Amino acid sequence: MQHLISLEGMARERLHALLDRAQHFAGLDPRAAPPTSLAGVHVVNLFFEPSTRTRLSFEIAAHRLGAQVVNFDAERSSTLKGETLADTFRTVEAMGAQLFVVRHSESGACEMLSELAGDGTHIVNAGEGRAAHPTQGLLDMLTIRQFAKRPFEDLSIAIVGDIRHSRVARSDLHALRALGCGDIRVCAPAALLPDADELQGCRVVDAADEAVSGCDVLMTLRLQRERMEDGLVDSLDGYYRDYGIDQRRLSLARADAFVMHPGPMNRGVEIESAVADGPRSAILRQVANGVAVRMAVMEALAG
Amino acid sequence: MQHLISLEGMARERLHALLDRAQHFAGLDPRAAPPTSLAGVHVVNLFFEPSTRTRLSFEIAAHRLGAQVVNFDAERSSTLKGETLADTFRTVEAMGAQLFVVRHSESGACEMLSELAGDGTHIVNAGEGRAAHPTQGLLDMLTIRQFAKRPFEDLSIAIVGDIRHSRVARSDLHALRALGCGDIRVCAPAALLPDADELQGCRVVDAADEAVSGCDVLMTLRLQRERMEDGLVDSLDGYYRDYGIDQRRLSLARADAFVMHPGPMNRGVEIESAVADGPRSAILRQVANGVAVRMAVMEALAG
Amino acid sequence: MQHLISLEGMARERLHALLDRAQHFAGLDPRAAPPTSLAGVHVVNLFFEPSTRTRLSFEIAAHRLGAQVVNFDAERSSTLKGETLADTFRTVEAMGAQLFVVRHSESGACEMLSELAGDGTHIVNAGEGRAAHPTQGLLDMLTIRQFAKRPFEDLSIAIVGDIRHSRVARSDLHALRALGCGDIRVCAPAALLPDADELQGCRVVDAADEAVSGCDVLMTLRLQRERMEDGLVDSLDGYYRDYGIDQRRLSLARADAFVMHPGPMNRGVEIESAVADGPRSAILRQVANGVAVRMAVMEALAG
Repeated sequence: MQHLISLEGMARERLHALLDRAQHFAGLDPRAAPPTSLAGVHVVNLFFEPSTRTRLSFEIAAHRLGAQVVNFDAERSSTLKGETLADTFRTVEAMGAQLFVVRHSESGACEMLSELAGDGTHIVNAGEGRAAHPTQGLLDMLTIRQFAKRPFEDLSIAIVGDIRHSRVARSDLHALRALGCGDIRVCAPAALLPDADELQGCRVVDAADEAVSGCDVLMTLRLQRERMEDGLVDSLDGYYRDYGIDQRRLSLARADAFVMHPGPMNRGVEIESAVADGPRSAILRQVANGVAVRMAVMEALAG
Repeated sequence: MQHLISLEGMARERLHALLDRAQHFAGLDPRAAPPTSLAGVHVVNLFFEPSTRTRLSFEIAAHRLGAQVVNFDAERSSTLKGETLADTFRTVEAMGAQLFVVRHSESGACEMLSELAGDGTHIVNAGEGRAAHPTQGLLDMLTIRQFAKRPFEDLSIAIVGDIRHSRVARSDLHALRALGCGDIRVCAPAALLPDADELQGCRVVDAADEAVSGCDVLMTLRLQRERMEDGLVDSLDGYYRDYGIDQRRLSLARADAFVMHPGPMNRGVEIESAVADGPRSAILRQVANGVAVRMAVMEALAG
Repeated sequence: MQHLISLEGMARERLHALLDRAQHFAGLDPRAAPPTSLAGVHVVNLFFEPSTRTRLSFEIAAHRLGAQVVNFDAERSSTLKGETLADTFRTVEAMGAQLFVVRHSESGACEMLSELAGDGTHIVNAGEGRAAHPTQGLLDMLTIRQFAKRPFEDLSIAIVGDIRHSRVARSDLHALRALGCGDIRVCAPAALLPDADELQGCRVVDAADEAVSGCDVLMTLRLQRERMEDGLVDSLDGYYRDYGIDQRRLSLARADAFVMHPGPMNRGVEIESAVADGPRSAILRQVANGVAVRMAVMEALAG
């Protein structure tokens, strides 16, 4: 594996192997002797969209593998001086950076860079357009593996929220299909559902209560405020009433169900605080798993 | 000690123990074998107010202890996307960061975070509202211990300038009281003096000449330009004449007195260049001591 | 050598010694055991002009020598609060930083800082006004040494473009003279030529075709868009026609000639894409050599 661009079409065995390795890292004490599998490797955060949380997660993961990290501040860089993305990439690659963590607003940017990359250069997609956010997909799968009482085949998973604009949801769907998840329910206002061809293997459920009923895993998504400005959502109150995850709605799920959210949360919009901070929230575990998964990915690519 | 939020109420023994350890670090050659007491620890600079100098000082101190440092750019982060400070903190904590260096414009932010923090997580206040800047207080005390010819009990210390709005002055006062300083003189225009209950153990002296006369230590403070815009100071020239530290005024102090300033300086406003750069200036030693003190604090918390 | 401010007047032996050492670093695998000649040294990127590519190159070079790097974000720092450049420098120096990589819009800034610097403090000019960019000059010389088939004395080198405003061209000219380059041709619109006293040892050639004819090395320079706004260039199309390096023009050079550009490139303005990406482009090798040269310089100063 030279790059990680998408989870689409990834073999189940490879997915589980990455998750196994991530699970190993999740159990390590960072203050014990550090792993050195990336010693001498330079990781570049090449972020064309700001995302402090994802950048930090990759940066901490890279440090824990012994890599050096440099941050390419795309908002103040030569791309502003008219340099093309390809030239920027080739320049930093020529400096000897081996692993590029790329965030970009346009789908296809990582694929394009991976075609330019030399043999010893690796691209990790850290969120790209609406298309994919594969390490988020992996950390969600690791979280499910840790919390769920049954194998993926037997799980009912409800995804509630703005799936249409969500690269997180897309990567989750790719992974859930690869892992053979038996029952995937998607639920959103019609304007926030993706096109039908993206929902292969899913069941569209109109009412959130019905989507949640009896599920094992409840994934909710961030509602970007611009959806309301764009008229795709009438009101935040209405959205919360119809699609927000509150304690009543959660009570419809299985007794051992848990709630996930990719963050950052809009409390009172897509999730009630009592749920986010409650005993059935897996949200902070997702964050912790993010570092472990990114260690596994970077090691698999460049280790 | 899990956190360092304020020097208020800190026991004299603990203060001296921190200063002893800082003195040890101040004498170390960084190019000799590095200490490793924070190896595997991630320090996060969580700065909600810009402060390059304080951030750099903490960053250098953390590196010298073997820690990894990541910078959380609060001005471009998820807090902008509506995430609460508590959620931002818990997210970075979940990534495995153990030591948070926090700068915030509102008093109470560090206390609030310390209540959220898990057992293995440490908060260091790096300047908070007007309330406290405890590592600045410590570095000032270390500087006084190094330069003064007598113990704290026998020193006369004059603090001249905008005490009302200064977290530096508050932390200095906390520390000077804890160390039993015998004579603390404060001097400022009436609008820049704090409320009387904050001046316990101090002597308010109206005229700067009188405040400086015979003192051992002369601490001057930065005058923020907005004080003039807010009408709290009539003119910079008048301020300099009445409260600025120039060579004539300094000559009123003891022959072995020295001058301190927390930086950045407004030359010609609160201090004359000939004083700032003169043989009796301890200002650059304060900066050097800042790194040593921050090493001592971070080691005491997380070492 | 305590500082590197300019290549002007540098002895040929010293230049070659730096290039020899850089050549050694260029051949090292960074994943092999890292050199540690700067272990315990703090390198500060003190950039008063944004330049992501140069900053990254220095940062990667410093890491490869075992140094720690901190970034001083001059655009958001105390210099904004009215602190002088000298005070900013002395403050960071007092924190224990030993090597300053300085980028500044005004010529003379590095010289001024070098006069303030203590014995153990080193300044590297990373681009200053129009005056000098000595590490770019060195990396260009290393690239020529690697690609050219003959010694400097026997080479014909054509420099085409905005020489007047280019610190890169000035440093290249300093180095080429020191290395005894036999034939230096400069070619630009009259408004973009420097004053005659700067062109000592050069031959001004009006037509680009003539300048390029039979040359061994073809150096082209970035055309800043503001030159057009300032009326120094009539049109980008006209500039490209008269001074741009395209395949036809390149065919006038020697068969083994190669093309250099300091980046970032304006494709279609000063260089044709087919040339920039073609087999005779040395442009990415220049970038790679930048890291090696900066390692050699930092080691020579602070190692």
